[in-house]
Amino acid sequence: MRFSRHNSFRYCILGGGQLGWMMILEGSKFPITFEVYAEKDEPACKLAQCFKEDFKQRMEECDVVTYEFEHVDDEPLNLARDLGKLVPGMNAVELKRARHLEKEYLRREGFPVPRFVTVEGGEEALRVLRDEFHNVGVIKRSEGGYDGKGQYFIRGNAENYNFLREEKGYFVVEEIVDFDFEASIIAVRRGNEFRAYPPTFNYNEKGILVYNYGPFWNNEMVKIAEELTKKLNYTGVMGIEFFVKDGKVIINEFAPRVHNTGHYTLDGAEVSQFEQHVRALAGLELGPTNVLSFSGMVNILGIGEPPLDTLRYGTLYWYGKTESRKRRKMGHINVIGNDLSDVKGKIENIMGILYPNGPDL
Amino acid sequence: MRFSRHNSFRYCILGGGQLGWMMILEGSKFPITFEVYAEKDEPACKLAQCFKEDFKQRMEECDVVTYEFEHVDDEPLNLARDLGKLVPGMNAVELKRARHLEKEYLRREGFPVPRFVTVEGGEEALRVLRDEFHNVGVIKRSEGGYDGKGQYFIRGNAENYNFLREEKGYFVVEEIVDFDFEASIIAVRRGNEFRAYPPTFNYNEKGILVYNYGPFWNNEMVKIAEELTKKLNYTGVMGIEFFVKDGKVIINEFAPRVHNTGHYTLDGAEVSQFEQHVRALAGLELGPTNVLSFSGMVNILGIGEPPLDTLRYGTLYWYGKTESRKRRKMGHINVIGNDLSDVKGKIENIMGILYPNGPDL
Repeated sequence: MRFSRHNSFRYCILGGGQLGWMMILEGSKFPITFEVYAEKDEPACKLAQCFKEDFKQRMEECDVVTYEFEHVDDEPLNLARDLGKLVPGMNAVELKRARHLEKEYLRREGFPVPRFVTVEGGEEALRVLRDEFHNVGVIKRSEGGYDGKGQYFIRGNAENYNFLREEKGYFVVEEIVDFDFEASIIAVRRGNEFRAYPPTFNYNEKGILVYNYGPFWNNEMVKIAEELTKKLNYTGVMGIEFFVKDGKVIINEFAPRVHNTGHYTLDGAEVSQFEQHVRALAGLELGPTNVLSFSGMVNILGIGEPPLDTLRYGTLYWYGKTESRKRRKMGHINVIGNDLSDVKGKIENIMGILYPNGPDL
Repeated sequence: MRFSRHNSFRYCILGGGQLGWMMILEGSKFPITFEVYAEKDEPACKLAQCFKEDFKQRMEECDVVTYEFEHVDDEPLNLARDLGKLVPGMNAVELKRARHLEKEYLRREGFPVPRFVTVEGGEEALRVLRDEFHNVGVIKRSEGGYDGKGQYFIRGNAENYNFLREEKGYFVVEEIVDFDFEASIIAVRRGNEFRAYPPTFNYNEKGILVYNYGPFWNNEMVKIAEELTKKLNYTGVMGIEFFVKDGKVIINEFAPRVHNTGHYTLDGAEVSQFEQHVRALAGLELGPTNVLSFSGMVNILGIGEPPLDTLRYGTLYWYGKTESRKRRKMGHINVIGNDLSDVKGKIENIMGILYPNGPDL
């Protein structure tokens, strides 16, 4: 891959959500033109040409095809793979699109994961939950799951979930990890070069990230990220989510892309996760992953008006989505602080403005 | 001014160069739509709709009109003023578009400026240079001057400048300040609220900024910036350039807009000068102006290919101009460091890559 004069390097991004939008915000600094496979009213289309019908021609013309989200249409994804332009590669997407494959891969390769059983059909999932997990566990649909979708936390009340009996497809039945806290790491790999931002503490509610902050120094996570990206021969940014219990880390899941818990890098780090991703995909030298400050992020969930009062505590990223829905990520606020407690204080203030009665999720 | 739902707040920017482009990069995080008065091949048009002919309608529709450069067409500028939408206001632009007005204003208001005389016509300029400055001084055209254009540094060899005799219009004849170094400050004002980033050390060659770095703490500059923006009843970001001699500061000039010496704030500060400008214009609360790190910037002047080798030392901002010309600003590289000497070392390395034989200016 080689840059030629005057912005002739072209990226296609599959998906026009906020992750694509921020990739373009950060990547526009480079001699790269972005085009996006998305409907015209999606966030990324404010900054780049969007297309759908003529995707074949666009994929032919682009130098690199990436995705901002793994649940994207099969046709352009497969075409990009067939053209040899898909980065990160299909092996990572495939694991991600079927939860049971991801989990089995991680376990097979020796990474720490919760105890789980893969089953076919909802009936079998409920049986395994009863017989092997004493009716306490999570049943997760293998496909289409993100932000807590398709996950059922069951604590003894399995009878409420009888609707699952009719369901087909793969399921994962998993122990509920009684973690002390959740955390994640954002890593980037290009060739044999690997770098990772310091991990963060994450606070999720009903499967959705509400806020996170850091740095939280943890060598085990760095080691896991390095091994995993290497085993997958991965190129680009990856986010890996963990449960932490008694100082030990267990992988919850990974995302083969830029990640919600890395948004703080837009303000708290010299080079953001989005810029790193764009650099890695173009074969450009990676940037430093050190943080410049203690920092954090709060998601704006299901709120239709930009919360401008939060500006006194941080920087607003408003995605410009045309419609607000419950649980929908409408924007986020990045926070910088002198230490973790300063950051946490600002997050608390922002939470009070956004969700005076707590998040409605 | 008030934001309504879904990006209905509209900014018109007069001028589509790199300053407008970065305003949009940073301002897109807010619920604001940007439109730009510029030719379609200019940098800002990669990120926003550009227009020219239908400027009347656009100005009517925009909530705010700003300019990224003071030498913009009169018609849209005057219209924006007449509509009461021009921010920063016309008083600042007018001073800036006529150097002698700027200088006389500053002197009249008691700000420290070099010794100068305003004259009409090149003949008179040369006479004053001879009689009052012993043929050592700068003759500056009042209009159209920026990046060293229209400035003649004369040190005894006045006979080489006889071509000026025929020239009409206002000129400033000014002493050559034998400064120790140059510096500048980026300040922002909204209502009675004033904030300033720490100043930087600047290195100019032939009137063009080559690189700068900081922070350089100087209270005198902060005081001047606060007074000047207050006297002008100014809204938005302003850059003020200084000569520093024996610890004393003298104003060289100011720019009623975001400024080349503030580009480092994109990476070295929590909130960039571009975001501050966008905030101030919308009446939004200003952000902090503290820096997160020692940092600096190197301009890419007259180089047609993106210098990707510099990525190991900093972050590239490539403006995507269609044509490279001598002295033209094609991009810049922001640098972060552990201390000033680390920053300076990186700048030196970048200078070596960009200009192995020194800048060709």
